[in-house]
Amino acid sequence: MAAERLVVIGGDAAGMSAASQARRFRGPDELDIVAFERGHFTSYSACGIPYWVGGDVGQRDDLIARTPEEHRERAIDLRMRTEVTEIDVAGQRVRAVDRDSGEASWTGYDKLVIATGARPVRPELPGMDAAGVHGVQTLGDGQALLDSLDRAPGRRAVVVGAGYIGVEMAEAMLKRGFEVTVLNRGPQPMSTLDPDMGRLVHEAMDGMGITTVSGAEVTGVRTGPDGRVTAVTTDGETYPADVVVLGIGVTPETALAGAAGLPLGSHGGLLTDPSMRVMGHQNIWAGGDCVEVLDLVSGRLRHIALGTHANKHGQVIGANVGGGYGTFPGVVGTAVSKVCDLEIARTGLREKDAEAVGLRFVTATVKSTGRAGYYPGARPMTVKMLAEYRTGRLLGVQIVGREGAAKRVDIAAVALTARMTVDQVTALDLGYAPPFSPVWDPVLVAARKVNAAVREAGSA
Amino acid sequence: MAAERLVVIGGDAAGMSAASQARRFRGPDELDIVAFERGHFTSYSACGIPYWVGGDVGQRDDLIARTPEEHRERAIDLRMRTEVTEIDVAGQRVRAVDRDSGEASWTGYDKLVIATGARPVRPELPGMDAAGVHGVQTLGDGQALLDSLDRAPGRRAVVVGAGYIGVEMAEAMLKRGFEVTVLNRGPQPMSTLDPDMGRLVHEAMDGMGITTVSGAEVTGVRTGPDGRVTAVTTDGETYPADVVVLGIGVTPETALAGAAGLPLGSHGGLLTDPSMRVMGHQNIWAGGDCVEVLDLVSGRLRHIALGTHANKHGQVIGANVGGGYGTFPGVVGTAVSKVCDLEIARTGLREKDAEAVGLRFVTATVKSTGRAGYYPGARPMTVKMLAEYRTGRLLGVQIVGREGAAKRVDIAAVALTARMTVDQVTALDLGYAPPFSPVWDPVLVAARKVNAAVREAGSA
Repeated sequence: MAAERLVVIGGDAAGMSAASQARRFRGPDELDIVAFERGHFTSYSACGIPYWVGGDVGQRDDLIARTPEEHRERAIDLRMRTEVTEIDVAGQRVRAVDRDSGEASWTGYDKLVIATGARPVRPELPGMDAAGVHGVQTLGDGQALLDSLDRAPGRRAVVVGAGYIGVEMAEAMLKRGFEVTVLNRGPQPMSTLDPDMGRLVHEAMDGMGITTVSGAEVTGVRTGPDGRVTAVTTDGETYPADVVVLGIGVTPETALAGAAGLPLGSHGGLLTDPSMRVMGHQNIWAGGDCVEVLDLVSGRLRHIALGTHANKHGQVIGANVGGGYGTFPGVVGTAVSKVCDLEIARTGLREKDAEAVGLRFVTATVKSTGRAGYYPGARPMTVKMLAEYRTGRLLGVQIVGREGAAKRVDIAAVALTARMTVDQVTALDLGYAPPFSPVWDPVLVAARKVNAAVREAGSA
Repeated sequence: MAAERLVVIGGDAAGMSAASQARRFRGPDELDIVAFERGHFTSYSACGIPYWVGGDVGQRDDLIARTPEEHRERAIDLRMRTEVTEIDVAGQRVRAVDRDSGEASWTGYDKLVIATGARPVRPELPGMDAAGVHGVQTLGDGQALLDSLDRAPGRRAVVVGAGYIGVEMAEAMLKRGFEVTVLNRGPQPMSTLDPDMGRLVHEAMDGMGITTVSGAEVTGVRTGPDGRVTAVTTDGETYPADVVVLGIGVTPETALAGAAGLPLGSHGGLLTDPSMRVMGHQNIWAGGDCVEVLDLVSGRLRHIALGTHANKHGQVIGANVGGGYGTFPGVVGTAVSKVCDLEIARTGLREKDAEAVGLRFVTATVKSTGRAGYYPGARPMTVKMLAEYRTGRLLGVQIVGREGAAKRVDIAAVALTARMTVDQVTALDLGYAPPFSPVWDPVLVAARKVNAAVREAGSA
């Protein structure tokens, strides 16, 4: 029997995890694996780019989990700098173009994995392609930005966007000695939090010397005679800039899949079942930043670009392609980040997410510390918790604080997955010792307060 | 209507939380609250004593959450230095003795809360009462030890016991400039872990310059002409000592309750229902270190002396006494600690716990890091996970490592409470960003490995 052929489009986390996992299940005599990557790198941590740009991570290659050579050693026919330009679903083949030679060829498949990732949102405004204006999606972007910093005529950086990438890049620019201004469209930075929690991030960034301008609608970029950026303009102001970093988020890279007639959701991502099989296509799987995922709390589909999901998708796809079994049940919307020593975390639904799905809720916000108050290094932490009206089901948690704030959100992530009520959360047996927590963990304090609010609201 | 009277025996976490919470529900015109405390202090953090002795916490009073005066301001009739010597259950009254005047009197109650705590195990061996030999259960013990350090003729400390208190006191003695030897009866320190994980603690303590002697059965203490300790003897060796710290664990302080005919369990603790009402007694509650608690994983009763449980018990009792409603569903056995920068955590069952209740299991142990491997400060962490054979139910997790190891156990604590399988754990949506976790959190890596072991064992 001739070997089956698996074709993988995209050589980053989801695609190469799928390929590697499929290889573990089935050897080269059983399964032929061809993977196409249009860029120069495979299996790298895009999430690490801000720390490389900021200097915490010394080398670009530190971010690469597995090189093309390492993949090839595992009998994966990896074709770098080769872009798939068409998927012929009926003919079970893909057309790929060698980006150096320009040569195109068709490759047939028995099974196909689409892992084309996401692309940064780049506003269509005057000057956005100017020298000195940088996205930070790929290693190439990171290198271009680092080179640009060396050439920058001054030390003024403007970061457009105040989400995860925006605040992480603000920290990176600060560490590189730049004066940093963050332009933020919304009412507060970190729109992945409720505005009352975003305000805490704003205040902390002020304290770090980062200027955050909220409600700023960018209208364009001004350039000098050499074509390099000199300023960013908004509807109201002009912000001089020697370098501009775009951190406005990403959108699923699904033009190829869409053109092939594969099903896309309302966020532009591919639609899959829990085995990560593309809906209606027995032999096509998709995973990573190009798919939509089920939000287990709201029951809706979302698009979340995050390496940890991409890796899980890859594992599930690889098992299923290789003849094993795996499913990705969904997400609860956990995300953590930091700006300098300020930790930011969220999971589940924000107020507006709950409203959007018609869930009535109560909230409580508490201030506590990450260690016992008397223990050295105890630093403040604010926890906001949402619970469903009447049922008391936990709906979401947001945490902003210093050491120990970010990963505390995992408690809530597990509780959300288990569909616990906040009453159940109050009784959780969490780790306690003075260096690690007050005797009531901040998450428990928040749960007690919101639980009381649930009871009060229910009796009203 | 005359006010009801609530009598509370014990002025620490459980007792005073109960009193305070009951007061929130019912004012002084409705409920008369009398609390007896035989010592000098109320509501203090016994868990903080090692850090006070070690110098991390500057003042004894930093460990006191609420003073007698603060309790009295809340209309609690608190009688300090007054020891309850008898409970007359049929007569609904307690006999208390003023420890200064020696005067005894009876106080009647409508409702009674027993929160008599635990007492340290003090082996009945020659010389254990000598000067320079110290327990660390109470603030008084801590002060006596600190005074003793000043009087110590040399700088050799012997710590008897290598559980939580033992290792924390080893760190404290090290910080005070002592040469520290820990004598440990078991095969490895931290018998709350499996020996393979305890070995990692042993190795780390070696690296810190703490000498740990395992399999050491203490036979007595030698004293000098001044009556002060000079050495600790074991079945094999003699260890010179200028100060000795006993950290051998605690046992429920239930002599009073036992004499009154109240029901005690096999660990010597009071038996209660989930509302913390003493079994068979409508108007008596008990909580804190003097009760046994339900282990939700094994289904057995255990005795666990831990401030966080005591506080929860107090809240529940106070609500029930005050006319509200609360239950304490049980524990999963979570405990965290540290020795210098080594973090130690456990939750659920060890191998021998699972064996003791007839659960067949598989295990997996993985090494990972608390941050992305390329992120500065990424430090090693070992995670061991137990899952039930066939069903794959998570049974327990042990973590030993540096920064970020201890509180990661909370993920497992919540998953145990929700009775998740390790397969479900592999899919958890945990916080990921390079400064906080590798793309696969160490707990997820362990879950994947043990999940594979479950499948393999099931197909064998």
